[in-house]
Amino acid sequence: EGIMALDSMVTSITDRNALLKRFQSVRQLSLDLAGLLSPEDCQIQSMPDASPTKWHLAHTSWFYETFILVPHLKGYTRLNEEFNYLYNSYYNGIGEQFSRPKRGLVTRPPLSAVIEYRQYIDKYMAELLADEAHPHADEIAYLAEMGTHHEQQHQELILSDIKHAFSLGGENVIYKARKPEAANKAEQLTWFDVAEGLYEIGHDSANSGFAFDNEGPRHKIWLDGFQLASRLVTNGEYLRFIEDGGYSNPDLWLSEGWYFLAKKQRQHPGYWQKRADGWYQYTLSGWLPLNMEESVCHVTFYEAQAYAMWAGGRLPTEQEWEVAAQLAGTIDDSSYGRFHPQVAQKSVQGASPLLQMIGDVWQWTLSSYAPYPGFETLKGVVGEYNGKFMCNQYVLRGGSCITAPEHVRLTYRNFFPSHIDWQFTGIRLAKNNG
Amino acid sequence: EGIMALDSMVTSITDRNALLKRFQSVRQLSLDLAGLLSPEDCQIQSMPDASPTKWHLAHTSWFYETFILVPHLKGYTRLNEEFNYLYNSYYNGIGEQFSRPKRGLVTRPPLSAVIEYRQYIDKYMAELLADEAHPHADEIAYLAEMGTHHEQQHQELILSDIKHAFSLGGENVIYKARKPEAANKAEQLTWFDVAEGLYEIGHDSANSGFAFDNEGPRHKIWLDGFQLASRLVTNGEYLRFIEDGGYSNPDLWLSEGWYFLAKKQRQHPGYWQKRADGWYQYTLSGWLPLNMEESVCHVTFYEAQAYAMWAGGRLPTEQEWEVAAQLAGTIDDSSYGRFHPQVAQKSVQGASPLLQMIGDVWQWTLSSYAPYPGFETLKGVVGEYNGKFMCNQYVLRGGSCITAPEHVRLTYRNFFPSHIDWQFTGIRLAKNNG
Amino acid sequence: EGIMALDSMVTSITDRNALLKRFQSVRQLSLDLAGLLSPEDCQIQSMPDASPTKWHLAHTSWFYETFILVPHLKGYTRLNEEFNYLYNSYYNGIGEQFSRPKRGLVTRPPLSAVIEYRQYIDKYMAELLADEAHPHADEIAYLAEMGTHHEQQHQELILSDIKHAFSLGGENVIYKARKPEAANKAEQLTWFDVAEGLYEIGHDSANSGFAFDNEGPRHKIWLDGFQLASRLVTNGEYLRFIEDGGYSNPDLWLSEGWYFLAKKQRQHPGYWQKRADGWYQYTLSGWLPLNMEESVCHVTFYEAQAYAMWAGGRLPTEQEWEVAAQLAGTIDDSSYGRFHPQVAQKSVQGASPLLQMIGDVWQWTLSSYAPYPGFETLKGVVGEYNGKFMCNQYVLRGGSCITAPEHVRLTYRNFFPSHIDWQFTGIRLAKNNG
Amino acid sequence: EGIMALDSMVTSITDRNALLKRFQSVRQLSLDLAGLLSPEDCQIQSMPDASPTKWHLAHTSWFYETFILVPHLKGYTRLNEEFNYLYNSYYNGIGEQFSRPKRGLVTRPPLSAVIEYRQYIDKYMAELLADEAHPHADEIAYLAEMGTHHEQQHQELILSDIKHAFSLGGENVIYKARKPEAANKAEQLTWFDVAEGLYEIGHDSANSGFAFDNEGPRHKIWLDGFQLASRLVTNGEYLRFIEDGGYSNPDLWLSEGWYFLAKKQRQHPGYWQKRADGWYQYTLSGWLPLNMEESVCHVTFYEAQAYAMWAGGRLPTEQEWEVAAQLAGTIDDSSYGRFHPQVAQKSVQGASPLLQMIGDVWQWTLSSYAPYPGFETLKGVVGEYNGKFMCNQYVLRGGSCITAPEHVRLTYRNFFPSHIDWQFTGIRLAKNNG
Repeated sequence: EGIMALDSMVTSITDRNALLKRFQSVRQLSLDLAGLLSPEDCQIQSMPDASPTKWHLAHTSWFYETFILVPHLKGYTRLNEEFNYLYNSYYNGIGEQFSRPKRGLVTRPPLSAVIEYRQYIDKYMAELLADEAHPHADEIAYLAEMGTHHEQQHQELILSDIKHAFSLGGENVIYKARKPEAANKAEQLTWFDVAEGLYEIGHDSANSGFAFDNEGPRHKIWLDGFQLASRLVTNGEYLRFIEDGGYSNPDLWLSEGWYFLAKKQRQHPGYWQKRADGWYQYTLSGWLPLNMEESVCHVTFYEAQAYAMWAGGRLPTEQEWEVAAQLAGTIDDSSYGRFHPQVAQKSVQGASPLLQMIGDVWQWTLSSYAPYPGFETLKGVVGEYNGKFMCNQYVLRGGSCITAPEHVRLTYRNFFPSHIDWQFTGIRLAKNNG
Repeated sequence: EGIMALDSMVTSITDRNALLKRFQSVRQLSLDLAGLLSPEDCQIQSMPDASPTKWHLAHTSWFYETFILVPHLKGYTRLNEEFNYLYNSYYNGIGEQFSRPKRGLVTRPPLSAVIEYRQYIDKYMAELLADEAHPHADEIAYLAEMGTHHEQQHQELILSDIKHAFSLGGENVIYKARKPEAANKAEQLTWFDVAEGLYEIGHDSANSGFAFDNEGPRHKIWLDGFQLASRLVTNGEYLRFIEDGGYSNPDLWLSEGWYFLAKKQRQHPGYWQKRADGWYQYTLSGWLPLNMEESVCHVTFYEAQAYAMWAGGRLPTEQEWEVAAQLAGTIDDSSYGRFHPQVAQKSVQGASPLLQMIGDVWQWTLSSYAPYPGFETLKGVVGEYNGKFMCNQYVLRGGSCITAPEHVRLTYRNFFPSHIDWQFTGIRLAKNNG
Repeated sequence: EGIMALDSMVTSITDRNALLKRFQSVRQLSLDLAGLLSPEDCQIQSMPDASPTKWHLAHTSWFYETFILVPHLKGYTRLNEEFNYLYNSYYNGIGEQFSRPKRGLVTRPPLSAVIEYRQYIDKYMAELLADEAHPHADEIAYLAEMGTHHEQQHQELILSDIKHAFSLGGENVIYKARKPEAANKAEQLTWFDVAEGLYEIGHDSANSGFAFDNEGPRHKIWLDGFQLASRLVTNGEYLRFIEDGGYSNPDLWLSEGWYFLAKKQRQHPGYWQKRADGWYQYTLSGWLPLNMEESVCHVTFYEAQAYAMWAGGRLPTEQEWEVAAQLAGTIDDSSYGRFHPQVAQKSVQGASPLLQMIGDVWQWTLSSYAPYPGFETLKGVVGEYNGKFMCNQYVLRGGSCITAPEHVRLTYRNFFPSHIDWQFTGIRLAKNNG
Repeated sequence: EGIMALDSMVTSITDRNALLKRFQSVRQLSLDLAGLLSPEDCQIQSMPDASPTKWHLAHTSWFYETFILVPHLKGYTRLNEEFNYLYNSYYNGIGEQFSRPKRGLVTRPPLSAVIEYRQYIDKYMAELLADEAHPHADEIAYLAEMGTHHEQQHQELILSDIKHAFSLGGENVIYKARKPEAANKAEQLTWFDVAEGLYEIGHDSANSGFAFDNEGPRHKIWLDGFQLASRLVTNGEYLRFIEDGGYSNPDLWLSEGWYFLAKKQRQHPGYWQKRADGWYQYTLSGWLPLNMEESVCHVTFYEAQAYAMWAGGRLPTEQEWEVAAQLAGTIDDSSYGRFHPQVAQKSVQGASPLLQMIGDVWQWTLSSYAPYPGFETLKGVVGEYNGKFMCNQYVLRGGSCITAPEHVRLTYRNFFPSHIDWQFTGIRLAKNNG
């Protein structure tokens, strides 16, 4: 038997060729992202929360090895036993893990050996996925699909982590240069009404594609009526909040946020810098003048809350966000490849009354990350994936401009602590009816 | 005009004599609690989260002075202007506050002067409450009632804070000695069923007595069916969890909790100690052998979650707790005066299918502290009372054996961070239907 | 036999009546210093380095009890066994000690009980000192004399510790008010020459009075010629250093000092404050305008070094200080009772070419605290008194205005870490010959 | 004019060819040391005290560029202006420095570009050194020689820093493998007598070769008679101290050391590990069984002191060490290349009565690092080299097995804080006469 029993979780990709193709394209994208980096770039870790690119490349491979190849591929031998220690992230059920804050010290294996490790995994995964007669073929397919979603999460982290490191590693380190762009204006903000009523949210495992366990089960909720903003808050709007003394008015802040400001001497979002000739922002294309029409990004939960209070609104709950998205329809308008938030524009993003719901910046919600009614973790070690983090984190919805293509969906629940700002996090306003 | 406008908040005590009587009895209880303490005892602060008894005695007086006497009593003069700085807790709207972690350094005024300050406040409050023709009589009445509830909160803190300090201040410091007691057995645990459906929770300001702003507005919620345990978890049950290796099994713990254990090298609840002849517990009556039938107390949210996981259940949400309490009826079975949790006993606590809902230990819920739908803070400075703390704290329900009489109610929402253990915090289990 | 053997250490007070008289007058002075304080004042501890006055009163009593009464007075019973745990400072040889940073939490015994403890000790000490026929009479006499010197050290700490606590405990807390004083000018600074040569320093146990073990043995040293300043650096001189940008010029600072400034955001000596109408200084008489003619005080070793560098001089070594003091002769010009540094004045302080050598502020030397050649600690537990602190501390010479009368002497070696500023520490310059 | 004036400092290598040859061989050795490392290895920084190999390679080049080429080579242009920010270590006089703890984040330039930077510097240095008619030829020569000594210091740091990083970067990372060796016994320890008297120590700039400013001026000192151990303390001897309960006996420890043990939960020297089959030690050749005859290494000052106390001796002062070395004669018996301490053996190390004085492990002395009488820092920015670190550090003498060839000498003063153990630090005993 396999290391876990899967009841409700089923593969969403029934065609084995399609699954293999997805597997291979995801694997390739990781290499493409790392392809812009030197061995030294791939080695560094700028804080305990971040990991080296090399580690991400290895860990995502270890995931397939540990949860699929070792239990299911007869005669499979790990390429290197030490990797099971070095590249286990946090699965206590698998064994001891190498110290997280010291990942940047693991210089051996070098990058080249990790690339070889990837090739080794890819070869055996292709072999196993081709074996349709395997007694656990369904479980293997589900886990392989899960593995690609897991790898996509790490593709996002490769970008957010290297942005953090590069912002500290010199005066203007550039991940990928960007060409000059036309100056666009953000659309006018309008309000989308949702009436009170009994709704359903969450992933329906019977009828939809892949989802993580924390997205289900689908369940009923009651909502009072509310309104959701048609687009995200822009840098220009946020700057008015700053210039209005937002950072020195305690009435606007959660008590914990107010102490956070004092302790960090924080006066603006992450990666912003005020210079003699105006505001600049660190991007994956280096330091650039702040574009007032783009969505504000790298704000903490505290700042999102304070801005909303100042603007006379509030943050939506995750339930509100999801119901509104159901009702309005959403369009993925990600600027993936540019790796930076966009300007809200109907002409580009289409006819939905809610712009920028998917693929611009992660949107802080009022909701603390908690299990849905009836939630149960996956059995076995993979059960450590999501449930054990349901404490003192806030749910973010919608994906960002560095979220890998075809990864995010309407029921997707991302989560981070209230003080973090190194993810691509922004603000969408809500308000009560009446 | 007053410093705030009150719409929905109305006095629940319409008889002015009754209000004055409540005011005076609450004021007296604070003195009674401090009456067991020396001037030195009243001076100390054992951690930044706690405050000296003397400070509690002064701050509760400052509250009436600042929010009632100064704005509403004509010709009133503060007894001492410096007190407005020394005894403001966290109201930024009032002005700068004396550094919280240094409250224990304020030796002047001495305890005797603070007692005189209380008498000064009491005299003018009695005068103002007698003035039924005052143009803001209703607001004054509401604020006075609120002030007594505020003072009751600090009465609880006087006890929890001095317990913390005394546990560190010598080998067996005793707040109040206790006589030997009969050995009782806790009732058998049974499960109380609640069917799925649309319910209402929260304080109804129109028809009920006093409540804090965070308890409302009353609102609809949908609940899936669930079951709630008939009594609290006992020390004996919790000890079986420990002896079963609960503290060394990462599968049972939230990730944050697991790190908490390692960092604190924690192996048991707060105030427990293993000696050669068995387990002991520090109580307000000094170190006593652990009574296995009493409710477990001084557990963190992490421990409550881990115990529930081990026991095959989970914590209830605050909505579940409140609905079950509505349906079952509750009885206040507080052991106030004994200042220690009790043994669950129908003979004493009566006929409700849910024992120990009120007045034994605060019960951790799964719910992060957040605004109810439609919540708005009080206008003016009193608005800082509750709303600004709605972040990274968990809701506790039910009051404890050190909660002042007539303070807690079914809609009452207490809240603390997940790592604290110095409050009287315990565990009631829930589980899903089916 | 006693708990230690004493070879070279002998009593300097051969007349038993004189010894008893000294004992009693020292004991009385501790009570007099505490007499200006309330029970609350005596309870508080403002940082781990400081202790409550009540603790000092008890610990100094415990010292006689533990090192004299218990081993030498037949039939003596400790007043309270717990005191041996609560009031042991750092003598590992005696047993476990109550946690130093938590001394302020020991509210029981109250101040009144500690006063009774003192009376109990005094009674039995008087009895023992009267017993001239005691087989260990000499050791008892030596230890009793040592105990009075030990108590005098704690008398100084009572004042420095309460100054620290009071500076944090309100807006202008006063230990002892002071009358207005005439405005005097400091004498002109001149240089006292010392020629190169072989000298002797250190306490000569055979021919002198009492000294601590770290002051001996007397030993030869070679000194190159040097010059020593005739008086201490004044506040006015130090302010010129500040106004000349001293705190922002890294060339002047030890590397460790430069980081200290940044970390503490330090811009001036301890207890200084710049207000709209000029500089103020916190004193044991409250906040007063900075007197430019008084000796600068509450400077760290780093600041003393940086000032000396700026002024074109250097700090003296402790060997240079002691030799110069031998050659020039010194006069104790302490302002004890006023508890604040003085203005250097020949008319008051007499004919020595070196003013303010004794009793104004402790003078930082260039010398790290280390054993003299041939140094050996006292045998037994009293050996923990000095030797184990000989690491990463700097020697200070000369005593201060809060040093108890008849405590300090020319060979006296005080020592503190380079970053402390809460002692009464100042600067005397030296320079090389030629 | 140059950026500094040099009075007493003169080149010790008058032959320009010899100087160039020394320059080139030192430059080559740095590359040879790095030649065993990958680009990833050269990138990492395992703690703020350590630096990446790549940084050492660049900083040593920057030193020549900044202090020689820029001021003295006409028309010289820095290869890259940003390097002046990235590779300035701590010279405030040169300008702002890149944050020391973040050196490991500077991935750009890559290792290959730093190698090119070295070649660029080498080319222009060769050109400048060849110009004997240069108006500042003497200063250039002196600074060039100083630059090689500076680079040799960093060659030692390359090895100590990579040892630290590799010990954390996996299970058995090896810098350089080592062949099996014959088992030798350490010579018997004897005592070398030095009589009391007036001696001279310190570098004599007129008659000797190169020295750093802190080694002078030569000056007279008086020493009481003492004895110095003929060899270093071995692992086996140190293990007996451990097994005798050395780490749990507070009488043996400096107070600061005792707290250090508790805080770090330290039970043995750095890089030691107890396994089921005995003690192991991490070396630059990986984890190896502890050789009991080799010199103990990676001990803190606290451990050196405690061991000496246990052994009935003490540490020598630096003056005693230097005088004994003068009298006995010393032989450089370094095991450079093997990069690990040796076994004391007369057959190998020759006829001096003092073995292992030079080139085995740095020997902690009792002496806090302080200026010699008459010490003056170099003028100009180079003056920041040594003087500003004279605070809370202890002097170490003798060099180690990773000290570059021809770098150390009898007057050489190394210095580190008392708690460090990542340098190759060991123990030589002394004792008083009589």
